[in-house]
Amino acid sequence: MDKINLAWRYLKWYQDAITPFLDDYFQAKLSQAKRFGQVPYVALEHFYQLIQRGKKVRGAFMVLGYQLGGGLNEGLIIKTSLFIELLHTALLIHDDIMDQDQTRRGLAAGHVYLTQYAKERRHPNPSLFGLSNAITIADTAFYLSWQRLMESEFNDSLKVKTGRLYADYIIRLAYGQMLDVANLYQWHSDREEILKIFKYKTAEYTGSLPLILGYTLAGGVDDGIKQALRDYGLAFGWIFQIKDDILGIFGDPQKTGKGVGSDLVQAKNTILVWYVENRAKPRFRTKLAKLMGLKKLSLTQLDQAREIFTQSGAYDYAKQLADEYLDKGLKTIDKITQHKDQADLLKAFLYLAFKRDK
Amino acid sequence: MDKINLAWRYLKWYQDAITPFLDDYFQAKLSQAKRFGQVPYVALEHFYQLIQRGKKVRGAFMVLGYQLGGGLNEGLIIKTSLFIELLHTALLIHDDIMDQDQTRRGLAAGHVYLTQYAKERRHPNPSLFGLSNAITIADTAFYLSWQRLMESEFNDSLKVKTGRLYADYIIRLAYGQMLDVANLYQWHSDREEILKIFKYKTAEYTGSLPLILGYTLAGGVDDGIKQALRDYGLAFGWIFQIKDDILGIFGDPQKTGKGVGSDLVQAKNTILVWYVENRAKPRFRTKLAKLMGLKKLSLTQLDQAREIFTQSGAYDYAKQLADEYLDKGLKTIDKITQHKDQADLLKAFLYLAFKRDK
Repeated sequence: MDKINLAWRYLKWYQDAITPFLDDYFQAKLSQAKRFGQVPYVALEHFYQLIQRGKKVRGAFMVLGYQLGGGLNEGLIIKTSLFIELLHTALLIHDDIMDQDQTRRGLAAGHVYLTQYAKERRHPNPSLFGLSNAITIADTAFYLSWQRLMESEFNDSLKVKTGRLYADYIIRLAYGQMLDVANLYQWHSDREEILKIFKYKTAEYTGSLPLILGYTLAGGVDDGIKQALRDYGLAFGWIFQIKDDILGIFGDPQKTGKGVGSDLVQAKNTILVWYVENRAKPRFRTKLAKLMGLKKLSLTQLDQAREIFTQSGAYDYAKQLADEYLDKGLKTIDKITQHKDQADLLKAFLYLAFKRDK
Repeated sequence: MDKINLAWRYLKWYQDAITPFLDDYFQAKLSQAKRFGQVPYVALEHFYQLIQRGKKVRGAFMVLGYQLGGGLNEGLIIKTSLFIELLHTALLIHDDIMDQDQTRRGLAAGHVYLTQYAKERRHPNPSLFGLSNAITIADTAFYLSWQRLMESEFNDSLKVKTGRLYADYIIRLAYGQMLDVANLYQWHSDREEILKIFKYKTAEYTGSLPLILGYTLAGGVDDGIKQALRDYGLAFGWIFQIKDDILGIFGDPQKTGKGVGSDLVQAKNTILVWYVENRAKPRFRTKLAKLMGLKKLSLTQLDQAREIFTQSGAYDYAKQLADEYLDKGLKTIDKITQHKDQADLLKAFLYLAFKRDK
């Protein structure tokens, strides 16, 4: 538990450190938006609320990657790391449209919020208004993200190097997202594709990307360390994703800020579903099939699903898989750093992903 | 007419010059997408078809801006200019979702094409599939666009400078887009907002942006020339937009590749509508109101609308406004260049925007 606290403290430190900058940044951006008109202002205001409430794991990882690369200008990397958080919130807004999720981080999802706004003002087509402006505020934020990187005070060569990596990763992520969408609402899916979704949509993006971007911004060029960071990030991301899938069924919506069971409604290929589909006894598949893709899931049905996942072995399998990635992740650490403090922190983050309940 | 030919020839030269690179580029990107899966491949393939069929005015303008800045490496700027065309096609895909347009450049719009694809494969939710993948292929292309700029062979300092301008402009464009969406389906709109939409969504983006980006990539730093390029681009863009609005009502869909009359169905605030609303006799407003925002527009109703725009003076007003911007644009030219050939070409592009029928 001490180990985890180290990671919590680091995350908390980062959240606190970025807050004043985040506030200044959005104050400036909001007054620019206001000069354009009410709708850009309202959309950006909601975006600001969403980004404030994020866990900011990716931003913190970028700072950590920078420190692992020997970077010493904390103020600079913290301000710059906002670019990955701008991207992340933008992606979530598009994601919530695709998944038809209603809430995000305890608030209305972007399109839901903007639809509601239009309804209150008797706009003749509120849901199109909500959809369109949610698409566009996220598009705006992609460019705010690039603007943040480009106008940071790193030297131009580091910015371009980082920008290239950033683009490469997000293109892969986007393809992962398309596979995810294609497999939504049809759970009898291509086994290889599901694994690719896990890898590119979450693991690589959540873990490897921010660490490597931060390392690059510090001027880090050691290929061995880069590879180890990538592996560490993948392990972290896998654990993160597995926990996400578990929390999506067994979690407490008060803590996660997301609806429980929506993965089932969307017939999403989580690791739990994947196990039942590919490894469990046929009777569990039959039972689960009845609960997948329903318009609404009752609490009783949610309990049934939980039982299926527990009794079929899916839950244990997911936990065991997380265990394996924990081991894999731990093994990369001595290739990344010889500093005990840094190693402890990297360990702590793996345990944090492993133990998180939100 | 000779004057226009100069611009047509330049545009044709650019289209021909970029084609082999475009083909190589997409061949490489398509095989990457294919390694991910069928859906990314199909979505990118359609994107490729869309980009091929574009007029490529923006790409050509970027090359022109580069030449005006004294740049001599044609091969390099042509390859790099693809980044603005990638962006433009991406924006059109999101735009078609918001405007609910069905066709684009003579093909099915992105979301329509992908919905059809899903239907043929009996996907359980084809329209969500189409919407989601259209959102995502455009998101991908935003990052392909940045990747193209970042990996071009310009020096890092020019890339960062250009990237900053690029981001600044697109953020303004996105806010213009939100105002546009907000005013869709409600034509009694804020007069100032409409003018802002015209300015940021089209004029600045179509004309000024690519010219200034090209000029910057050539290493151009003369503030007077930059301002003149901006003014020239705005004039060009205004003419372009006014013609767009006229063609949207009076154009030939065979040539424009877009449905005629859809501006009325969407109750879009075109310059024609703006005139009837703000300047024409009340009886025209009353008549027009009956034709705005209908679910479908018959050919008879389209004719009625044409009559209203002609008789109210809206058509003449739009033509006259285009005339004024033509004059404004012509006056900027001697602040941009002293070379007769370049000046003739800049003139020709203004006349081209003025006379285009597609």
